[in-house]
Amino acid sequence: MKFTVDQIAQLIQGTVDGDGSASISTFNKIEEGKTGSISFLANPKYESYLYQSEATAIIVAADLVLKEKPLATLIKVKDPYSAFTLLLQKYQEFTSVKEIGIQQPSYLAEDAKTGLNLYLGQFSSIGKGSTIGKDTYIAAHVTIGNKVSIGDNCVIYPGVVIYNDTVIGNNCTIHANAVIGSDGFGFAPQADGTFSTIPQLGNVVIEDGVSIGANATIDRATMGSTLIKKGVKIDNLVQIAHNVEVGANTAIAAQTGVSGSTKIGQNCLIGGQVGVAGHISIANKTIVTAQSGVTKTVRKEGQILGGTPASPNSEYLKRNALLRQLPDLLKRLES
Amino acid sequence: MKFTVDQIAQLIQGTVDGDGSASISTFNKIEEGKTGSISFLANPKYESYLYQSEATAIIVAADLVLKEKPLATLIKVKDPYSAFTLLLQKYQEFTSVKEIGIQQPSYLAEDAKTGLNLYLGQFSSIGKGSTIGKDTYIAAHVTIGNKVSIGDNCVIYPGVVIYNDTVIGNNCTIHANAVIGSDGFGFAPQADGTFSTIPQLGNVVIEDGVSIGANATIDRATMGSTLIKKGVKIDNLVQIAHNVEVGANTAIAAQTGVSGSTKIGQNCLIGGQVGVAGHISIANKTIVTAQSGVTKTVRKEGQILGGTPASPNSEYLKRNALLRQLPDLLKRLES
Amino acid sequence: MKFTVDQIAQLIQGTVDGDGSASISTFNKIEEGKTGSISFLANPKYESYLYQSEATAIIVAADLVLKEKPLATLIKVKDPYSAFTLLLQKYQEFTSVKEIGIQQPSYLAEDAKTGLNLYLGQFSSIGKGSTIGKDTYIAAHVTIGNKVSIGDNCVIYPGVVIYNDTVIGNNCTIHANAVIGSDGFGFAPQADGTFSTIPQLGNVVIEDGVSIGANATIDRATMGSTLIKKGVKIDNLVQIAHNVEVGANTAIAAQTGVSGSTKIGQNCLIGGQVGVAGHISIANKTIVTAQSGVTKTVRKEGQILGGTPASPNSEYLKRNALLRQLPDLLKRLES
Repeated sequence: MKFTVDQIAQLIQGTVDGDGSASISTFNKIEEGKTGSISFLANPKYESYLYQSEATAIIVAADLVLKEKPLATLIKVKDPYSAFTLLLQKYQEFTSVKEIGIQQPSYLAEDAKTGLNLYLGQFSSIGKGSTIGKDTYIAAHVTIGNKVSIGDNCVIYPGVVIYNDTVIGNNCTIHANAVIGSDGFGFAPQADGTFSTIPQLGNVVIEDGVSIGANATIDRATMGSTLIKKGVKIDNLVQIAHNVEVGANTAIAAQTGVSGSTKIGQNCLIGGQVGVAGHISIANKTIVTAQSGVTKTVRKEGQILGGTPASPNSEYLKRNALLRQLPDLLKRLES
Repeated sequence: MKFTVDQIAQLIQGTVDGDGSASISTFNKIEEGKTGSISFLANPKYESYLYQSEATAIIVAADLVLKEKPLATLIKVKDPYSAFTLLLQKYQEFTSVKEIGIQQPSYLAEDAKTGLNLYLGQFSSIGKGSTIGKDTYIAAHVTIGNKVSIGDNCVIYPGVVIYNDTVIGNNCTIHANAVIGSDGFGFAPQADGTFSTIPQLGNVVIEDGVSIGANATIDRATMGSTLIKKGVKIDNLVQIAHNVEVGANTAIAAQTGVSGSTKIGQNCLIGGQVGVAGHISIANKTIVTAQSGVTKTVRKEGQILGGTPASPNSEYLKRNALLRQLPDLLKRLES
Repeated sequence: MKFTVDQIAQLIQGTVDGDGSASISTFNKIEEGKTGSISFLANPKYESYLYQSEATAIIVAADLVLKEKPLATLIKVKDPYSAFTLLLQKYQEFTSVKEIGIQQPSYLAEDAKTGLNLYLGQFSSIGKGSTIGKDTYIAAHVTIGNKVSIGDNCVIYPGVVIYNDTVIGNNCTIHANAVIGSDGFGFAPQADGTFSTIPQLGNVVIEDGVSIGANATIDRATMGSTLIKKGVKIDNLVQIAHNVEVGANTAIAAQTGVSGSTKIGQNCLIGGQVGVAGHISIANKTIVTAQSGVTKTVRKEGQILGGTPASPNSEYLKRNALLRQLPDLLKRLES
């Protein structure tokens, strides 16, 4: 699939500086640009590559002041990163062919209801009383339990397991081998040191536009619902425990764990390998840096938190700096 | 399914204060109680909800002194949490219908032995020389290797992979996509910088009453067995390395990793995201708080440990407090 | 399968001290040695077991000075650990029977190309335009997407999901439920607080001799390739983000996460539960201790790093020691 620089400029509403008739057939990072590829410059850190890149075209900011003349044709736009993202999205739309139809062997319970244009891959199963919306793609080797509801235009990748009673909205993506609706870790300690299992009778509810990463796990509620609100993005290997609520448009990076009954606000950014304690809440727009441990309720919105136990990140960084100077400080004080 | 308050009180050996003929059809948390639901109060922190809750019945401690008159009928018991757990368990028993039978397509090796009342889901496979006990439920998409032994009354959820030679006792639960018996991470460094693979010839042995979480991994032993003793509860995404032994009735929370050849005692509680070094042992009844790193053998029983490297948690907390005061302390000392 | 001590000594080029005609049928750790088993002594810490072990034969260093006479026959070699590893490898070669053939039901796309001696397990699928080399073993329940290339002599365990466009070399092992080629976590924040999904159009390239652990996840590149170079060993539950490059013969222990676009050098050893920030590089032969967080580019080769943010491990240990003494130090200074 080939486009001219002019065609691309029109698509992303940019102006061309150079040869608009040049032909583009692929994408590249600016430092790896080759003839026939288009790239972009958003981070000033990479500006030096602009002048050396062999890419045929590079998307740049309209207000960029050039230090020398690049080899490439430029497409000038307001926001190069957004423009490039848009270009990738359009490319994906043009090139992806959505398959439909039910492959065999597969298992579809007699009373399951499926919408128009369903794709159901080989060796996948949909249990009793489940409902799947239209335009939804269920890859091979997916297990969907009983009384599950999945909305329209979702993509469920291979190996995903969705337990009974789970509810999933529209436009959701679930990556391979993620598990939705497994039992919460509920065990009541007994006098003799053994544990009694607390039945987990609730479910998981996932709203519209949610993305869940590979091998992530989201446990069902003991009672009620574990709730992932609209637009939430969850990365690979994340653990969401029973009865957690994650607010709209919050993003959670890989390998983070959220303990039971905790409520995370909306528009939060939680870094990778973060631990969040149980039965607390985190205010909207909180940013938690990677590997931190949030142990207490965060009431004030919009803070950046770091360290374990998490505190405002600036304090955490100060303490870390001080800690590095400590040997010298103590020597000086003792002398 | 409906019960009267009186029927429930009889089941959990409680006494009724209010309308014993009221009808109950569901469960709820005390703060979300609605007409027709039963709830419980165990944590005094939630007592204020007792007086506002619209639940039809609430289970409370017999010795609770009421500050005002609740709207709900009360059921008074010695231990509300245990009583409520029992109620959930009875409800699950009444409502769950255990399916039996071998679904098709599935694969059962000719020489595999299976007990009475087996359920084997679609697309599941049981390898050569394997033995499955009675009343065991193997969901769809489960892979059981060769010479595996699984006891009675187990539940194996979809996508679980059990490698050759694994031994699993009775009454075990293994959640979706967990992997049991994968090769230990054994590589001998060579003079030229490459690694030589050390064959992993041992297996995994899981005793009775063990629960294993979704996407957890338990590696086989290099020689001998990785051993998970009776009643152990392992949460989602936990890693148990080769030749580890976990003592009876120990619970390990999500995303914790235990390195090779380490021996954890019985009745321990290991928090989430904890790391345990290899070739050490941890005494019985040790509690390790979340995100800690245990780097050395713990000989004294019953300690609470925190931090990395883990020390008695009270010392860890003191150090943390001191660290927070450090900027001020140093200023004072320097002045 | 039985061998004499003499036969084993010949295989590992050792000399026998004791009864060379004794019969060996199994392996054991030195502390668990029993009649008929062979063991080894490499770590001086375990020397006391040498004199008590009931193993029939023990492999020891040729230069070991005995404190007393062991019960076992000794096989003296230059490097007992390597010799024992070799023995395990030979044993595995002798005893493992490699199955071949395509089991049913399974799915092999019409235009997929497969080499000699393929094993394809039940319920496994190989997508359109994919190519599998010779002597490769694909277990049951494996999903291989479209346009995937897998080399010769690989072993893919059950439940593995390999997304479209992935390239895997020869002699690779991928353990159960690992996911290769899932979308990178790419979301562009929008002015209204929602995220726009950045299409992930690249792939994953895995070179020869790589081993990947159970439930590990390796994301495809946004553009270009996420690259795992030859001889890399990746443990269970590791996360490798989009556009990461891992250098040859680097080993990464369980539950470690590497963020997007980071480049790890060759011959590095990364401990368990380590976090590595995005867009940085780590020099060759770097060792990172468990639970550390590497936040900045590491330029100097061959360092041992520890802590978060990671610094030379000796400094980290000193700071930790000082921190433990801090309460006393401050008391002394204040008095």
